[in-house]
Amino acid sequence: MNLSQMNKEQLTSFKNEVEALYNDFKAQGLCLNMSRGNPCKEQLELSVDMLKVFDDGRFESENGTDVRNYGQLDGIPEAKKFFSEMIRVAEDEIIVFGNSSLNAMYFSIQLAYNKGVLGEKPWSEYEKVKFLCPVPGYDRHFKVTEFFGIEMINIPMTSTGPDMDMIEELVSKDETIKGIWCVPQYSNPEGISYSDETVKRFAALKPAAKDFRIFWDNAYCIHHLTDSPKPILNILDEAKKAGNENIVYIFGSTSKVTFPGAGVAVMGASRENIESLKKALGISIIGYDKMNQLRHVKFFGTFKNMCDHMKKHMAIIAPKFNIVCDTLEEEIAPLGIGKWTKPEGGYFISFDAMSGCAKRIVQLCAEAGVTLTGAGATYPYGIDPEDKNIRIAPTFPPVEDLKKAMELFVICVKLASAEKLLAEK
Amino acid sequence: MNLSQMNKEQLTSFKNEVEALYNDFKAQGLCLNMSRGNPCKEQLELSVDMLKVFDDGRFESENGTDVRNYGQLDGIPEAKKFFSEMIRVAEDEIIVFGNSSLNAMYFSIQLAYNKGVLGEKPWSEYEKVKFLCPVPGYDRHFKVTEFFGIEMINIPMTSTGPDMDMIEELVSKDETIKGIWCVPQYSNPEGISYSDETVKRFAALKPAAKDFRIFWDNAYCIHHLTDSPKPILNILDEAKKAGNENIVYIFGSTSKVTFPGAGVAVMGASRENIESLKKALGISIIGYDKMNQLRHVKFFGTFKNMCDHMKKHMAIIAPKFNIVCDTLEEEIAPLGIGKWTKPEGGYFISFDAMSGCAKRIVQLCAEAGVTLTGAGATYPYGIDPEDKNIRIAPTFPPVEDLKKAMELFVICVKLASAEKLLAEK
Repeated sequence: MNLSQMNKEQLTSFKNEVEALYNDFKAQGLCLNMSRGNPCKEQLELSVDMLKVFDDGRFESENGTDVRNYGQLDGIPEAKKFFSEMIRVAEDEIIVFGNSSLNAMYFSIQLAYNKGVLGEKPWSEYEKVKFLCPVPGYDRHFKVTEFFGIEMINIPMTSTGPDMDMIEELVSKDETIKGIWCVPQYSNPEGISYSDETVKRFAALKPAAKDFRIFWDNAYCIHHLTDSPKPILNILDEAKKAGNENIVYIFGSTSKVTFPGAGVAVMGASRENIESLKKALGISIIGYDKMNQLRHVKFFGTFKNMCDHMKKHMAIIAPKFNIVCDTLEEEIAPLGIGKWTKPEGGYFISFDAMSGCAKRIVQLCAEAGVTLTGAGATYPYGIDPEDKNIRIAPTFPPVEDLKKAMELFVICVKLASAEKLLAEK
Repeated sequence: MNLSQMNKEQLTSFKNEVEALYNDFKAQGLCLNMSRGNPCKEQLELSVDMLKVFDDGRFESENGTDVRNYGQLDGIPEAKKFFSEMIRVAEDEIIVFGNSSLNAMYFSIQLAYNKGVLGEKPWSEYEKVKFLCPVPGYDRHFKVTEFFGIEMINIPMTSTGPDMDMIEELVSKDETIKGIWCVPQYSNPEGISYSDETVKRFAALKPAAKDFRIFWDNAYCIHHLTDSPKPILNILDEAKKAGNENIVYIFGSTSKVTFPGAGVAVMGASRENIESLKKALGISIIGYDKMNQLRHVKFFGTFKNMCDHMKKHMAIIAPKFNIVCDTLEEEIAPLGIGKWTKPEGGYFISFDAMSGCAKRIVQLCAEAGVTLTGAGATYPYGIDPEDKNIRIAPTFPPVEDLKKAMELFVICVKLASAEKLLAEK
């Protein structure tokens, strides 16, 4: 029975039952962390042989550089070639960074802020600049823009990507809107992939600001949870067709391909953008870890091999996504107290509780020993206007722990929902 | 005979002889690069066994963190402990960064510029801020301050460190002087180590600016070229004694201990500074490469072992420094056309030609196939007011190449000096 159709008595009895279950759980003294999209131990084991690639004692890049020494600011050529296939740009449209794509994003924002983009006025010289933020979204993106005092404007997500009407309208009028955060494939947290039309409309944007950039964080570009993934359109190709090739910065990494702590991050963009970024990058560093770049290239050999490697990840984590979705389907769907999407890739399941319940659910879980991503984290400034979105990260816990955590989660959803409905009676 | 005592005829004949030698060299078609302080191949081989430390399949930090996964923004505890000994701070006075101390320096300047230091006004909000730059110094330091529009003021070096009278005078009066670049041990390029008095005077500085910081780039702290190195004083200890513990940021790295491209960089400072830096750092990155941190700790085990490892470096490069100094002593000293120091550590020999000759010498070397660091590079804005300083980096070339390069170098010094003296006749 749908919870909102219950009368006060029914609700009270429902709540009491659920509360008893909750207290049983609390007594178990669980201690599980589902707050971040961390790969699990089995996933980390998949890449351990990468550490053996230098057993041959060969440390030369194909251009003769000893990768152990200084140099090669934008990456060794074989790494540029290899990763350009992953983010679908040309070999001279890429910079290979260190272990963090977030750091590459921070760098590009910092640079735009302090020095401007391709000769335009630095963002710091405006009284205010703004960013568009499809919501729910990735908390670390929002933290970067907040850090630089950039005002963030929420853009609702639809099943085909962010609301493009709203974006087109806003950017065409306001010269102080300088960028937008996008996770185009398997968005964080909803797992939505942008439709062809969405990508084309992004590529064809005509912002009032010449230095408007789309921060296209394609973090999950090869992170499928299905055997027949649907590719999204190539944004840089589309932008070129639209005569708009400078509009996009593309980011990617192997954090969830090899090692989150020791992967390789990359950035793709038009040649003009890349040249300008490289010039500034060379002030801040002599070169990133080229040994790790070569380690990756030697380990995988080909892009196809890396994609095959991702199937091993899928085999480990797809069942975990199923546990979450099945539990929600069985326990929450009949009660009408939540909505979620079943993603075909990425690292998260986005759960929308009844309005006003997210914080309470997260709190209840925490008090019973399961840490979730903080409610509100998926919105700029940590403010979810309806207090309903919760990001579920199912990859890290072992299957048995995840089952336990989901049992608790649905109990907390039920309890918080009943509390809310009762308070309204 | 001292070249400046020669008459025109003698000089002309000297020049003609040298010119003939120079042209012989030019005909040989050399191609050697001595522009940067790169370790040579034999040095890189010293650390190759570090790549085997994970053959045991153990990836846990002592606090239970799997170093392959996300997290540990400021470094794993054993790395903090290990490297705190290198830069002589406490375990909670350190941040372990990625492969680049330059990047850590850039980050701290960028942070001070955009957000201010410990609650003070951001440097960007001043019409102008200034940095003191002991000269000659490290070009990459100067590039960072130049990038942020920070005005640089030359401070002459003495045999005991920078001119402290001048520094004390300047910082006490001018609130817009926000920092100073220091390479306190085996300075780049002169190889000068700061005396105890210099370190104490730095530690006791009373700048008008509360947010003045000493950027103490102790890049060569264990990079000795003698069996009985003289330690410099511990700046943070001295600063604490002077009630001044927030005044210094200390930097170091293993770029020239293990691998320049894949070492570990660290930053040390007071707890208050570190806490503040960490907060901002967490916006820009989730964590640096902890596998590489653990790789270093496992490989060396103890600080003493790392110091012993440095003796192997010394055995390889000390003879190269001798080649440079011996050649200069034999060929240049008798002519009175140059000065240099014989460093007891570090990576460079600083050569002062006669005024107005440095550019010409570097050009002559380049035209005969030997690339040196650009003349002027050791000064802010690339401007050596006397055009006399040249940084010689002897570590990279094989011994035979280095001998050849030095043969050429002294010929070029002689030629440029003779040209200059003749032009003045």
